Amino acid sequence: MSTPATPSPTYQVDFEPIGKRIEVAPNTTLLEAAQQAGLVLASTCGGMRTCGQCRVVILSGNVSPSDPDEENILTELELQSGQRLACNTRVQGNVKVHVPTTSLITTQRLQLKGDAVELTLDSLIHTHNLEIPPPTLHDPRADLERLVAALPSTSPQTIRAEPAVVRQITTSARAYDWRLSVYLRDAEVVGVVPFDTPPVGLAIDLGTTKIAASLVDLTNGNELAVAGTLNPQIGYGEDVISRLTHVWRNPDGGHTLAAMVWETLDNLLGELTEKADVSRMQVADVCLAGNTAMTHLFLELPVRQLAMSPYVAASNAAIEVKAHEVGLTTAPGAYVHVLPCIGGFVGADHVAMILASQLDQTEQVALGIDIGTNTEIVLAKPGQKFLTSVSCASGPAFEGAHISNGMRAASGAIEAVELTTTGFHLRTIDNAPAIGLCGSGIIDAVAELRRWNLINERGRFNRHHQRVREGRQGAEFLLAPADQSGSKRDVVVTQKDINEIQLAKGAIRAGLEVLLDATDTAPEEVQEVIIAGAFGSFLKVQSALDMGLLPHLPNARYRQVGNAAIVGVRYVLLSRQARQRAQQIVSQTNYLELTTYPKFNRRFALGMLFPDLDRQ
Amino acid sequence: MSTPATPSPTYQVDFEPIGKRIEVAPNTTLLEAAQQAGLVLASTCGGMRTCGQCRVVILSGNVSPSDPDEENILTELELQSGQRLACNTRVQGNVKVHVPTTSLITTQRLQLKGDAVELTLDSLIHTHNLEIPPPTLHDPRADLERLVAALPSTSPQTIRAEPAVVRQITTSARAYDWRLSVYLRDAEVVGVVPFDTPPVGLAIDLGTTKIAASLVDLTNGNELAVAGTLNPQIGYGEDVISRLTHVWRNPDGGHTLAAMVWETLDNLLGELTEKADVSRMQVADVCLAGNTAMTHLFLELPVRQLAMSPYVAASNAAIEVKAHEVGLTTAPGAYVHVLPCIGGFVGADHVAMILASQLDQTEQVALGIDIGTNTEIVLAKPGQKFLTSVSCASGPAFEGAHISNGMRAASGAIEAVELTTTGFHLRTIDNAPAIGLCGSGIIDAVAELRRWNLINERGRFNRHHQRVREGRQGAEFLLAPADQSGSKRDVVVTQKDINEIQLAKGAIRAGLEVLLDATDTAPEEVQEVIIAGAFGSFLKVQSALDMGLLPHLPNARYRQVGNAAIVGVRYVLLSRQARQRAQQIVSQTNYLELTTYPKFNRRFALGMLFPDLDRQ
Repeated sequence: MSTPATPSPTYQVDFEPIGKRIEVAPNTTLLEAAQQAGLVLASTCGGMRTCGQCRVVILSGNVSPSDPDEENILTELELQSGQRLACNTRVQGNVKVHVPTTSLITTQRLQLKGDAVELTLDSLIHTHNLEIPPPTLHDPRADLERLVAALPSTSPQTIRAEPAVVRQITTSARAYDWRLSVYLRDAEVVGVVPFDTPPVGLAIDLGTTKIAASLVDLTNGNELAVAGTLNPQIGYGEDVISRLTHVWRNPDGGHTLAAMVWETLDNLLGELTEKADVSRMQVADVCLAGNTAMTHLFLELPVRQLAMSPYVAASNAAIEVKAHEVGLTTAPGAYVHVLPCIGGFVGADHVAMILASQLDQTEQVALGIDIGTNTEIVLAKPGQKFLTSVSCASGPAFEGAHISNGMRAASGAIEAVELTTTGFHLRTIDNAPAIGLCGSGIIDAVAELRRWNLINERGRFNRHHQRVREGRQGAEFLLAPADQSGSKRDVVVTQKDINEIQLAKGAIRAGLEVLLDATDTAPEEVQEVIIAGAFGSFLKVQSALDMGLLPHLPNARYRQVGNAAIVGVRYVLLSRQARQRAQQIVSQTNYLELTTYPKFNRRFALGMLFPDLDRQ
Repeated sequence: MSTPATPSPTYQVDFEPIGKRIEVAPNTTLLEAAQQAGLVLASTCGGMRTCGQCRVVILSGNVSPSDPDEENILTELELQSGQRLACNTRVQGNVKVHVPTTSLITTQRLQLKGDAVELTLDSLIHTHNLEIPPPTLHDPRADLERLVAALPSTSPQTIRAEPAVVRQITTSARAYDWRLSVYLRDAEVVGVVPFDTPPVGLAIDLGTTKIAASLVDLTNGNELAVAGTLNPQIGYGEDVISRLTHVWRNPDGGHTLAAMVWETLDNLLGELTEKADVSRMQVADVCLAGNTAMTHLFLELPVRQLAMSPYVAASNAAIEVKAHEVGLTTAPGAYVHVLPCIGGFVGADHVAMILASQLDQTEQVALGIDIGTNTEIVLAKPGQKFLTSVSCASGPAFEGAHISNGMRAASGAIEAVELTTTGFHLRTIDNAPAIGLCGSGIIDAVAELRRWNLINERGRFNRHHQRVREGRQGAEFLLAPADQSGSKRDVVVTQKDINEIQLAKGAIRAGLEVLLDATDTAPEEVQEVIIAGAFGSFLKVQSALDMGLLPHLPNARYRQVGNAAIVGVRYVLLSRQARQRAQQIVSQTNYLELTTYPKFNRRFALGMLFPDLDRQ
């Protein structure tokens, strides 16, 4: 007889006001506990105790004491009131925790649709409706052979099917009395369904933060349903580097991060098929884009070399995997086509954006910009065979990170600021009490501060101005006092915030200028500037011009196209020609490495300056 | 606090003299217990209590009582001496069991080599030795792209690689300082290895009973190692129908049976690579043949329709799966090519046999026969575009099943019998004391009994002959008395055995005659008879002629080619052209369904008669 092992003790953690409860092992951090409970706490640094976003309040129970790292981020008052960083607080008894709205990544505003252009429908999936004679002793041909013989004579000679599809054929043929629709992808059967059932396709834009997906009818290109969700890898760091680091530091890290995305995508597909009232077996093709890190993580490709100089992708080429190998329940033989990327810093999402905005076929000098943690910029010049792309390390400031009261574009985020002689107007998402600033709000605020000369060309606050006050970290500007804010804390713009914005803007401006310089293009030659991406579509262009983020061109030359990446992915799903164009874009795009370009650092420093608005 | 569940009681079963011990749940049968202990007990019926092969002796301990089924098979004396059928005996306490040699399927004699013919070497795998410039900040191309650029310009334009291969490229390139050998299969990279490492291929003949495998150097066709083992599915029934029944009666049955073969094949591959001193990463291609049930079980294809009229295969076509999907550790992108089959009863092994024996290209009238539980016969006629194949339900008698003292070709099996006026000579495998008769021994014995007129044309024993005695089941002939046998039991040929042989021979003769009749061929027109398969290569042709199994043609027209199937599979591995020929054989072979042919039953009855040797 063996003695039963004594069970390890576990502690209960209650998250309020959400009302989630979870049992965890002693010394689990509250960030890990939240992850296990399915709560996504803001954590740009991925639990490295530097971003200070995962603030929680300990309501009761024993936890580990704070340390100097934490005391550097939280004020003494905050610590005394029970505030802690979830990543630095370990459970040492049953604990009750309050999670403030600002720390919780709520459902965000998602940008799903982009501008669509005309497209010749030519998907890879061809459907054949067949009525097949059943087998007899005198005609005992195999099921697959029988199905192939019933295909029109124009079909390819040697039809293939993987075992899972053969399984489906044998079962479905008998279930549907040998009346079937067959989905062919070139010479391969990818699935069979009841007679006269149309195939659908799934387009995915796998962003670092957000995932957008679109279900389309492959027979007419109609969008049947759209859905979006957060990338669940956020729990392992909001930025790419935290996630890549997690992967190579943990033997199973790559699989863990891949599998959580696969599961999320499969759930998203379930939501889409339900909305569109179609069967998963109709999903005959899937296309996916994302930045290079995201597509590498999705495919479980090695990432260490991607995170270290010279930042090399394992593969730039388009890769196709069977959908079932990445956990998607679709037609059993369906593939996921992952679009090709241009390099370590210029991903498949950029290729999809170029495709959707037709920058590879434009007849004028045009720029395409996708602002994010990395900002990719591409220049098209008629008559030149090649596009040129740069990637600027603009950092996550425009996504609300590293900004004192920065936040994502969620309810309560300030998205527009207007100063008047007597006060100011704020516009928040959902008109909720202000909690912090999202990207477009930050740009608006900085532009207004500059317009009103509250900050100078070098970004310094005018400390003599009556509207500038002294805060904990130097000069700051009050946007919403604690008693009016949603977080019951002052919402401010600090000197440090201005500096962060300058760094981001400097990187983008330097990238733009190198791009123009290297291609021998004067700024005024640029006839069109396409601003893509979710952030870009909420941006107030005039503010971006006034604070010097974008070059001063007539407003009409700017075009905000929203999430162009998902549109590009949909093109690839619907058109064999678009799939080829994506490949051409990759081979016809020169990637320009900024850090090795002459005088890059000087351009960076100059790019940090704000324009002298009086002189314009 | 939860109360720990009381563990279910288990009993210990000791198998002697092997010395294996296992813990099982109450009421586990001894057959299941043996399976769990890794012992393969003989069990043609798959545990249905009809074949009587899984005899064991209970030395001590409590087991379930015998029932009428068992009492029908075992004599009272046998039951009293503790003998039981393992499949009908349930464990009800700690038990000690003796497993007699006759019940244990020991390592068998395997037929691995066949006659080889000349072949133009043209495998699907092309190897390129590359020295690749490593990435720099000025040349940050992706790893795959960099490798592809280093390939000779004659390679296909669009090179593909699945994620697992890209993973290997990234890791190996850095481990081997960018000096690599790349295995290309058409436009797909299937693996990379250190510079100048040759690719090898694996050929598999997946038999119902035995598995033969051969490892070859793909650059020169040399055989590096051979190995064989038993098909582990034997534990689920020695015949095909028992296994198919298991699959559709058990929800996980298909996967269980497939997975156990995958594991065995992977172990076999380990043995082969060790013998040949090559790395598994060099295994760049795998080809496999087997009968239609075996290939279906291997690929987890549906089998129910295969076991019921009109006996339809799910797929006749060649199927390719990634080796890793069927549990084989090889070059990460390697495929398993499963050869095409002709129909439910005429499998890929028959196609491989035709390929190896060149029956598709012969310039004379030729027959190919592969004798087994199903006996496939093919006729080639010069000038006719089509080959014609039949499949005869000859049953497992020639494999020793349904024969009182029948056994497989293992140590102690009588393989040759010669009667003299005064006694007889026996030849046994390994010259061990006789335990029973294997197929060639049975045919020899029956032929001798007929030559000496101990049985008549209709197969009846001459009861008046002094050498014929009365046994438990009627007349019988004593070959080895208990005191000289290895089993300490009399080894006999009974009237029932003769009748079983007549049924098997009747089926084969009827098949042969229908085949000749349907193709308008006189027996004497046949210029060559190729006898393939392990059993066929040990057969004494004269005995097969004398007992009427084969038609009376000059001995020189018979050619015993051994295991031609594995040779055919090796051809397919080594030659693109052979792979195409296999497909042509399938499309140029007419399958003739015997049971619907006119007068088949009469031919069957006539085929059961023995020849009148005096009149020849």
